[in-house]
Amino acid sequence: MSFESGRLALIGTGLINGSLALALKRAGAVGEVVGCARHRATLERASTLGLCDRTTPDPAAAVAGADLVVLGTPPGAIGEVAARLAPGLDEAAVVTDVGSVKRAVVDAVGAALPRSQRFVGGHPVAGTEHSGPDAAFASLFEQRRCILTPVAGTDPAAVARVRAMWELVGSTVDEMTPDHHDRILAVTSHLPHLIAYTIVGTVADLEEQARAEVFKYAAGGFTDFTRIAASEPVMWRDVFLNNKEATLEMLGRFTEDLIALQRAIRWDQGEVLEDLFTRTRAIRRGVVEAGQAYVRQPEDPLAAKP
Amino acid sequence: MSFESGRLALIGTGLINGSLALALKRAGAVGEVVGCARHRATLERASTLGLCDRTTPDPAAAVAGADLVVLGTPPGAIGEVAARLAPGLDEAAVVTDVGSVKRAVVDAVGAALPRSQRFVGGHPVAGTEHSGPDAAFASLFEQRRCILTPVAGTDPAAVARVRAMWELVGSTVDEMTPDHHDRILAVTSHLPHLIAYTIVGTVADLEEQARAEVFKYAAGGFTDFTRIAASEPVMWRDVFLNNKEATLEMLGRFTEDLIALQRAIRWDQGEVLEDLFTRTRAIRRGVVEAGQAYVRQPEDPLAAKP
Repeated sequence: MSFESGRLALIGTGLINGSLALALKRAGAVGEVVGCARHRATLERASTLGLCDRTTPDPAAAVAGADLVVLGTPPGAIGEVAARLAPGLDEAAVVTDVGSVKRAVVDAVGAALPRSQRFVGGHPVAGTEHSGPDAAFASLFEQRRCILTPVAGTDPAAVARVRAMWELVGSTVDEMTPDHHDRILAVTSHLPHLIAYTIVGTVADLEEQARAEVFKYAAGGFTDFTRIAASEPVMWRDVFLNNKEATLEMLGRFTEDLIALQRAIRWDQGEVLEDLFTRTRAIRRGVVEAGQAYVRQPEDPLAAKP
Repeated sequence: MSFESGRLALIGTGLINGSLALALKRAGAVGEVVGCARHRATLERASTLGLCDRTTPDPAAAVAGADLVVLGTPPGAIGEVAARLAPGLDEAAVVTDVGSVKRAVVDAVGAALPRSQRFVGGHPVAGTEHSGPDAAFASLFEQRRCILTPVAGTDPAAVARVRAMWELVGSTVDEMTPDHHDRILAVTSHLPHLIAYTIVGTVADLEEQARAEVFKYAAGGFTDFTRIAASEPVMWRDVFLNNKEATLEMLGRFTEDLIALQRAIRWDQGEVLEDLFTRTRAIRRGVVEAGQAYVRQPEDPLAAKP
């Protein structure tokens, strides 16, 4: 199925929605793109960068006449935003979102919209540590995966349309239940982010002098964590609060494993360490073979070769 | 001070020593490179790849006539290796190492060598998750830092020579005490590795089906951890066992912070999360400004654009 949209409304004009706009424009698949955000400065940047053809801070005005609406607001605000745009929504419009949690979002948006069967929960598994309109780039979704989470009653035609959009911008699309999505992402994304935030926070609490030295020698491993821990604060706050159960479950497993490892170090159990480190190397091979290890674009001002 | 060596002996011919050989050969700074490793297959690869001009499995034979000896064996084996090579060592030879821990190494090697004042502990803060001769490449040390840890009694001329070698291959050299090195690296490298190993191990323990899905959606954050957790198992086992005190101290701080965050999620304390996530973003800026965030070379067979 090919994809096109006469008028696309983007609620939120940050990294994900902005990149989607650029990718769809590049493909010549959209007529007009209308951008909506709370702050005037954000909307001005989105216009200047060519992400949107027209902007408005009013969600109901933004969606008027749009055949497709993409919600790109943090999960904690998405229900309220959906309620505000509902009065302006066309009957035939398809609504989707790009949030990193799905159960809470599908429930909140479903309850707020007059025709929840035209809403398809979505999550493009792509991103960088940067945020806002300036972070957007057209190739963000190429060779990445996108998960759609239709529920009982969701219109199959709406699902097909959203699927076609993500395929057009280069992603492979899978479908699963919102709960299943949240359990998988708790492992692949939410727990790793939580741990990265924690270790970088632990370093932030070191005294000034030690912190300066950490910056200097960060290349030894710490750098990777700082990149993850630079991700958008409000979005991630909402992710953890809205995928609490699965995150806490995985965190419990992780903490047990960490304590066991701590004990092995204290008691000089070298074979326990070597055995684990050998098993984790095999996992890396699994990830590489699944095509999920990729090379990052030059994005750091002081980028140097490894 | 310029650097040259008539005969360089490499004890261990893996990623670090192999890369050092390639870099020094490229610079035309070495006469003969003699490689020493336990396994015949490793030595054959090192020869084939041009890392060494001559090889031997006997440490004492390897160092005979060498004016510089670089120890690149895991920290746990380095004292024994130093004792084995000691009988063959020239009086004027300078000995250094490339290990990730320094107190234990400096003590063990110092006790094993007849002239410990000619030994200079060293740690090039560079590497990849790959290991062995095939992982070596000449540019590994460019724009990276190298730490030397001379102690009371270390010959300043030996320190100057080792410094000149690392500067020649592109690194910035700093000097500090072994204990100070171990405390800094516990934060910047050892703790991050331990945590990456743990989370990847937690995933390794998931049931088969869940694991396959984790591979598929790893791009959401997990990928970075798998790369770190693919680092050489024996080397890292020895790092933790030989920097136990500083690692356990930092691990204690990390665990406290993680438990506090877990509690904040359970009790919906969004402001605690947002505050931390905002502070960690600032730390990333510190690392980028210190020039320690860099772009990785294409190294994965299935590398795709972000």
